[in-house]
Amino acid sequence: MRWREHPEPDVSAEPAYSGTSRPRRTVVALGGNAIAPAGTGGTAEEQTRNIRRAMTLIAELIVDGREIVITHGNGPQVGNLLLKNEMAKDVVPAMPLDWCVAQTQATIGYQMITALEHALEAHGDLSTVVPVISRIEVSADDPAWSDPSKPIGPYITDEAEVARRRRDGQQFVDLGGRGWRRVVPSPRPRTLLESMTINLLLDAGAVVVANGGGGIPMVRGDDGLLVGVEAVIDKDLAGALLARELRATGLVILTDVEAVAVDFGTPRQRWLSKIGTRDLRTLAAKGEFARGSMGPKVEAALTFVDDTGMPAAIGSLDDVIAVVRGHAGTLVVPDAATAERSRS
Amino acid sequence: MRWREHPEPDVSAEPAYSGTSRPRRTVVALGGNAIAPAGTGGTAEEQTRNIRRAMTLIAELIVDGREIVITHGNGPQVGNLLLKNEMAKDVVPAMPLDWCVAQTQATIGYQMITALEHALEAHGDLSTVVPVISRIEVSADDPAWSDPSKPIGPYITDEAEVARRRRDGQQFVDLGGRGWRRVVPSPRPRTLLESMTINLLLDAGAVVVANGGGGIPMVRGDDGLLVGVEAVIDKDLAGALLARELRATGLVILTDVEAVAVDFGTPRQRWLSKIGTRDLRTLAAKGEFARGSMGPKVEAALTFVDDTGMPAAIGSLDDVIAVVRGHAGTLVVPDAATAERSRS
Repeated sequence: MRWREHPEPDVSAEPAYSGTSRPRRTVVALGGNAIAPAGTGGTAEEQTRNIRRAMTLIAELIVDGREIVITHGNGPQVGNLLLKNEMAKDVVPAMPLDWCVAQTQATIGYQMITALEHALEAHGDLSTVVPVISRIEVSADDPAWSDPSKPIGPYITDEAEVARRRRDGQQFVDLGGRGWRRVVPSPRPRTLLESMTINLLLDAGAVVVANGGGGIPMVRGDDGLLVGVEAVIDKDLAGALLARELRATGLVILTDVEAVAVDFGTPRQRWLSKIGTRDLRTLAAKGEFARGSMGPKVEAALTFVDDTGMPAAIGSLDDVIAVVRGHAGTLVVPDAATAERSRS
Repeated sequence: MRWREHPEPDVSAEPAYSGTSRPRRTVVALGGNAIAPAGTGGTAEEQTRNIRRAMTLIAELIVDGREIVITHGNGPQVGNLLLKNEMAKDVVPAMPLDWCVAQTQATIGYQMITALEHALEAHGDLSTVVPVISRIEVSADDPAWSDPSKPIGPYITDEAEVARRRRDGQQFVDLGGRGWRRVVPSPRPRTLLESMTINLLLDAGAVVVANGGGGIPMVRGDDGLLVGVEAVIDKDLAGALLARELRATGLVILTDVEAVAVDFGTPRQRWLSKIGTRDLRTLAAKGEFARGSMGPKVEAALTFVDDTGMPAAIGSLDDVIAVVRGHAGTLVVPDAATAERSRS
């Protein structure tokens, strides 16, 4: 817990928003980088170790009587699968992006069950943990289809390779000296397709892992058949949708910095401990939060708080217990107008 | 439906074994080859098409009032993942076998939900389908650990590569002119770790896909922590355990031939339409059924019938509706002594 630069924590913040008869249900979103940090390669052993560490912390929240739904990113893991696709493509059929997302839901999910059930048992809690293979419907009319903006996979410096892959239909962004990177559409999550399953499991007392990697993106064709698509759904926006659909009393987005900051990375950097949606939106409009980094996390938090009148928090995985309790990270709270609307 | 060489079907066979108050619960085991036939490479499109075809048939059984639990193999799919591991190993960490099994549970399972829900909707049935990421505990004392016998992945003809991979701890079997093939232990499935989840989902009316690829093999360490292991559990034996644990009224093992045969592939070949466990075991002991092919299917059927007194059937995926109804394939029934024991 790193709390030095924060003002006194607002310990009254959390109970004020959990005055429902239902248990405090919190959706916790872990980054894929927290499981396979960029640069290490992400062997199975490393990922298992990181997942165990995170689940040991999450277990304390569950034992404390909180209902936790876990969602997680998969950037580095999908990046590795895409590299394997590419390197083996002359011998083994490459698998499309939606299949890769499904694969990471299973590997990360399988490790999470094992680690979290074990951590809970250490507290005498025999709860069942269930990773749900989760599809999300996106719109065929989403503007993202004509503006692929989500970079995935490795940096490529070989121009001939980029040209060849462009002929295969892939799109790339030129990053100057660092080379090129493949970009795919990132449509907005529209409909969770596994809501009934997730609710059934939660009602039965299970701890659920859902929407891994933002969910498997699918579009419904004219014949009503869902078809997987080559896209990546932002896992924090998907987490906000999940939290809303599950009527969660809070959304917690974990990252590798301790909170949202203004003037991030400058001598004037200042952590935000508590902020209303209107002020946060003003900062976002001024470009305070990096696209592809803190930007989507702030957007996801704003979406959830605006839609539900419940608070969201952004903070560090290492501080997760304090962040969930409202003692660390940035707490995003509704403005008076939003709070009024959601009460009525 | 190919029934030419069969005697008159015993249409009374099935109802005689489903005289419980619970709906007729049938575990149906599909082969991984039925989804990605060997030789085609198994692109995503091909696998999707094959899964849709199979799910269209399975949907008819469900609409007919039967409770179906699906399990499936993953041989070709895991083979492809291992090839990718190998070809990309200098750049991306290779993933162990238990992670690969998890990956195939997700990809096949994700396609199965989508295809089966769609096929059911066409009949006006809005049932939810849930693929369960399924772990199976195996014993650290299983004799299989010292006798790896399950061939996985491609044939290798480069002796230097075999030598290198042996130094990495992999084991190979020499297949003479065809080269070498990696072999891994195939321990007996001992404990389903997702029973509670599966039962909860079934009780809620979901169609469940479970134990894909025989389940993710795990061993429990001295500290009580489950750890994934490099092994492959036979999916039909795992299916027999699943059927027993779920108190299924039948186990149906699907393959690419229409039934169990004696003198298979000879001019004297004869399909078996109905046989008791004692006679079938006698044939198995005479070596009638090929190891790694019909052998494990017969063993799985015998295990289920002996353990439960309920019937098992072995037949072709194309005939699945008739096989489940007892009108095609080979029906394996308890001997009088077994039936007596299971009634008492």
